Amino acid sequence: MRVRDALLGKPIPDSEAESESLGPAEAVPVLGLDALASAAYGPEAALAVLVALGAAGVRFIVPITAAIVVLLLLVQTSYRHTISAYPDGGGSYTVAKENLGRGASLLAAASLSVDYVLNVAVAISAGVGALVSAMPVLHRHTLGLCLALLVLLTFANLRGLRTTGAAFMVPTYAFVACLGVAIAVGVARLVAAGGHPAPVVAPSALRPAVEAAGAWVILRAFASGCTAMTGVEAVSNAVPVFREPAQRNAERTLSIIIGILVFLLAGIAILARAYGIGATDPERPGYQSVLSQVVAAVFGRGVVYDVSIASIMTVLCLSANTSFADFPRLCRSLALDGYLPEAFAHAGRRLVYSTGILFLSATAAALLVVFRGVTERLVPLFAVGAFAAFTLSQAGMVRHWHRRRRDRGARRALWINGAGAVATAVTLVVVLASKLLEGAWITVLVIPALILVFRRTSARYEEAARACDADAALDVTDLAPPIAVVPVKRLDALTFKALRFALGISPRVHAVQVLAAGHAHEDLSTRWADAVERPCRAAGLPPPELAVLRSRYRQVVDPLLGYVHRLAAEDRSRFIAVLVPELVEARWYHYLLFSHTATLLKMMLLFRGGPQVVVVNAPWYLDAPRRRRARRGRRGVVPLAAHTAER
Amino acid sequence: MRVRDALLGKPIPDSEAESESLGPAEAVPVLGLDALASAAYGPEAALAVLVALGAAGVRFIVPITAAIVVLLLLVQTSYRHTISAYPDGGGSYTVAKENLGRGASLLAAASLSVDYVLNVAVAISAGVGALVSAMPVLHRHTLGLCLALLVLLTFANLRGLRTTGAAFMVPTYAFVACLGVAIAVGVARLVAAGGHPAPVVAPSALRPAVEAAGAWVILRAFASGCTAMTGVEAVSNAVPVFREPAQRNAERTLSIIIGILVFLLAGIAILARAYGIGATDPERPGYQSVLSQVVAAVFGRGVVYDVSIASIMTVLCLSANTSFADFPRLCRSLALDGYLPEAFAHAGRRLVYSTGILFLSATAAALLVVFRGVTERLVPLFAVGAFAAFTLSQAGMVRHWHRRRRDRGARRALWINGAGAVATAVTLVVVLASKLLEGAWITVLVIPALILVFRRTSARYEEAARACDADAALDVTDLAPPIAVVPVKRLDALTFKALRFALGISPRVHAVQVLAAGHAHEDLSTRWADAVERPCRAAGLPPPELAVLRSRYRQVVDPLLGYVHRLAAEDRSRFIAVLVPELVEARWYHYLLFSHTATLLKMMLLFRGGPQVVVVNAPWYLDAPRRRRARRGRRGVVPLAAHTAER
Repeated sequence: MRVRDALLGKPIPDSEAESESLGPAEAVPVLGLDALASAAYGPEAALAVLVALGAAGVRFIVPITAAIVVLLLLVQTSYRHTISAYPDGGGSYTVAKENLGRGASLLAAASLSVDYVLNVAVAISAGVGALVSAMPVLHRHTLGLCLALLVLLTFANLRGLRTTGAAFMVPTYAFVACLGVAIAVGVARLVAAGGHPAPVVAPSALRPAVEAAGAWVILRAFASGCTAMTGVEAVSNAVPVFREPAQRNAERTLSIIIGILVFLLAGIAILARAYGIGATDPERPGYQSVLSQVVAAVFGRGVVYDVSIASIMTVLCLSANTSFADFPRLCRSLALDGYLPEAFAHAGRRLVYSTGILFLSATAAALLVVFRGVTERLVPLFAVGAFAAFTLSQAGMVRHWHRRRRDRGARRALWINGAGAVATAVTLVVVLASKLLEGAWITVLVIPALILVFRRTSARYEEAARACDADAALDVTDLAPPIAVVPVKRLDALTFKALRFALGISPRVHAVQVLAAGHAHEDLSTRWADAVERPCRAAGLPPPELAVLRSRYRQVVDPLLGYVHRLAAEDRSRFIAVLVPELVEARWYHYLLFSHTATLLKMMLLFRGGPQVVVVNAPWYLDAPRRRRARRGRRGVVPLAAHTAER
Repeated sequence: MRVRDALLGKPIPDSEAESESLGPAEAVPVLGLDALASAAYGPEAALAVLVALGAAGVRFIVPITAAIVVLLLLVQTSYRHTISAYPDGGGSYTVAKENLGRGASLLAAASLSVDYVLNVAVAISAGVGALVSAMPVLHRHTLGLCLALLVLLTFANLRGLRTTGAAFMVPTYAFVACLGVAIAVGVARLVAAGGHPAPVVAPSALRPAVEAAGAWVILRAFASGCTAMTGVEAVSNAVPVFREPAQRNAERTLSIIIGILVFLLAGIAILARAYGIGATDPERPGYQSVLSQVVAAVFGRGVVYDVSIASIMTVLCLSANTSFADFPRLCRSLALDGYLPEAFAHAGRRLVYSTGILFLSATAAALLVVFRGVTERLVPLFAVGAFAAFTLSQAGMVRHWHRRRRDRGARRALWINGAGAVATAVTLVVVLASKLLEGAWITVLVIPALILVFRRTSARYEEAARACDADAALDVTDLAPPIAVVPVKRLDALTFKALRFALGISPRVHAVQVLAAGHAHEDLSTRWADAVERPCRAAGLPPPELAVLRSRYRQVVDPLLGYVHRLAAEDRSRFIAVLVPELVEARWYHYLLFSHTATLLKMMLLFRGGPQVVVVNAPWYLDAPRRRRARRGRRGVVPLAAHTAER
């Protein structure tokens, strides 16, 4: 108990549930971090494809980034309309559910789930990439560092990270400031040098071209670069957390985020081209991330470089953290709708959805291990989910406006969301086509598999609900005491306790002894009359009947189960209550001393007993009563009063 | 079930318990194998110490073997008297228990246990050593081969190896024949060559001396060589399995075994000296076991060599198997006396003591892994347990004869057993002193630790028996129906079933609903009157009372436990029966869908509920009744009839 408290913190009562209320200045870090952090891996992903073209390839980064910026602005306009239509939060799952029906909503949910998991893996691997760029000696520990960061994030989130603006503001604004200054200074030098500035630290040499420039390689670079757009949907999900006027604050926040992102992407593209910065192989020592090369080219490797790399790394790790905030919430929505196991819907001791957090962490860890913590390998899997969710959300909005097409402004909104839907759908097709063989096929297989899981879960819950369906009122006809069955081994205190309980609930008690060779127990039939029957008759009670079964296979459970089945068959209308006495030990290792027939018997009775059988478990405490009472007082009765307020 | 049957075989009924009846010809392999196999590692262990003296060291093998042979003959005479005194089997544990009391018997038991475990590890590692001598390419797989052999032996023993003479006779007599012929031919050539025979295949070169000859190194070589004596006690344990006249047959068997062993030891020593054969380093490639060198020197590496090595390997593996037969039986005796957990006393589905087998296998595996399968490293741990058991057994016999000192022949027997006890005790001291730092300290620590475990276990059983102690007859005063507590979540079929059972066993039923934030359950108090109270009143039953508890920490179990404790405190004389409904699923993975509150609640009620609380578990089957009934028919009722014969 203590260890758990130390690691995870003390339980938090419901009354302390966090209530946020953000203005744009705090909202940009909290909600925009994921989008802004994408600037750290989007351009790099595009350059990693262009590197095949050698030095000539770097030139294409500018038009590719321009295309991404156009798409980004379109998506922004489109999401502004989503914000105004869903002031309570319009995530892709919600919008698709309300407008496009169950199938589309599950597709959106599956896409988003994949996206969230990949975001964790990509952000962490990119953050570690920044770190090993600055400290090449750590290169061979890439995967270990990734997993260590993941474990850290998992624990922080299980404790319940207070995601207040402050924690996010410093690194986010440091990141924007460092990159912003680097871009401004770099562009100024570029202009001063007439287009050919000299880098302070020269970027890594580009490999010679292995491919000719063509539409296919440009498309693939664009598709990879589109990972820069992930995370922009966050604001539309989160309208309720804004200060009033919530809707306007949300729109303003979205504009600021997109504005900064566009500035960063454009600046990185221009400087990469000017300095001839390409991607280097992340799986070889000497790896330098693109941002590391850009900052080093502008400032050299001094204090500013170190601060920049530190802020990039922090922002990337925090952007992994947004998945930890959003994925469990999505799982909770799915669980409340019956598409995921109940466990995802329950807030744990620290008011966080622990099941979702652990699940996210486990799957992200698996991805990191399989792809050895290399961002470049993860990126092909990444954009598919995000663009599928974008497209479904926009398409849902088209339907939404179509229903309200007589309202003022609805027609214009319909066109804008429609354009957004088409643009993201086209991008999705491009991403799919160009990345399918590089790994997107995994995403393409996982998404329908997830949908299948959602549907099967839901079907099973419905089946279970039907099986548990009951009349409106309790049926109290034909109530009769159960037939009590008491398995006995010896005539000891456990047996007597069980017999007393049995005699208290039913006038018909059967005692059963199973004699198995190798178990040195005496046949009780000789002592039964004196020890049990006589006192019962004296008290005017019908005495329990003893049956002695002999087992040829040294098994105790099967013969008992057979006896119970025969009793059940005799009278199908009555419950059979089987009393299983249980030794309760003070120390876990004492359980090694006793045979676990009781546990096995309970399980078999529950699983194979049939609907009439009810298992009655009577504990017998082996340790000193004094110690037990003291312990119960400490952890049982007293704190309970504090936990509950009885009506 | 099928997989288990395939791996372990179908269950065996009690009636097929094996009954053996051996004459000397079959008994020599069955009971003597362990002792004879020692010839394969005893001389090697002595030579491994002498190797420090270089070529000069090999000469000492002859006097050392002579000392061991003298000791062996003394022990033989001593054991003949044990056989005549304990015709029902006089193992060290039994003899010590009957003559020296509890302390000595536990010391004997602990020593024997250690000895059995080490015998498995040493025999397997020596067998694999023989194999890699013949096939040097396998050298780097030494540990893997050891563990594979161990797994094979474990499975064979869990299935229940029929230890008939035949299975043992062929390899044992092949082993004796091969070595016997090699020794005879070798000695003949030795005589013919006037003491300096030329080897067919030259033995491995001896390393130069690193130590001067002295008493200490000779003592250490003697102590290592004493492992050749392990296993000679087997006959004295097993008198009842002999054909009549059992005692005489046993004595004759013991004489034959010792005779062969003396012949083998002497022959190996003479040939090792004549050919200048020393031990080679088993941890380096190029390792050659001493027997491999001897056979190769006499016959070269032809067919005879291959057959000899195969018989040595088989005999060593089978000698590991004698531990699998004897250790579980020793554990069973200890368990029946209350010194080990009950599980060791129960014969499993194949009539073998599975717990003992698995325990032996696990500890032997641990030893093999720690000592990397190298016989030489295991030997220092080995002889301590064996000689401690020898000494205790002889000392027990001294006491035995002392009590009967007026009988005819008792005085002479007393002297012989006394001499045996002194000789083995002196050897034990030599072994301890010379091997302590090389690893015997492990044995010296483990033996008292085991004794502690035996004593603690016994004390705990006595405590438990006292705690379960009961009067001679059932007390039926103050019998009253329990207070029934029904935790409810919703008004569904599970709840109604629980309420029906509760109303059937008690007029006082409390229903409890715990409302925790985040669990979307409606407050039942509004529907209670209509759904439950009204039908009860209409039927003239006292209606169940509903309490709705609110939980501030989203926990369900603690508030319920508090409620139960308060009810229990109100009336200390009545049982509180808590009804826990339980969904029973057809497929294990469906359990992932439901929260495990019921399981947790049951456990907490059992562990912290206190002596009044009884847990009633009512199953609710979710799958189709047809399928369930079919399954129950297949595995439940029908085979049960075959398993049991009811009185």
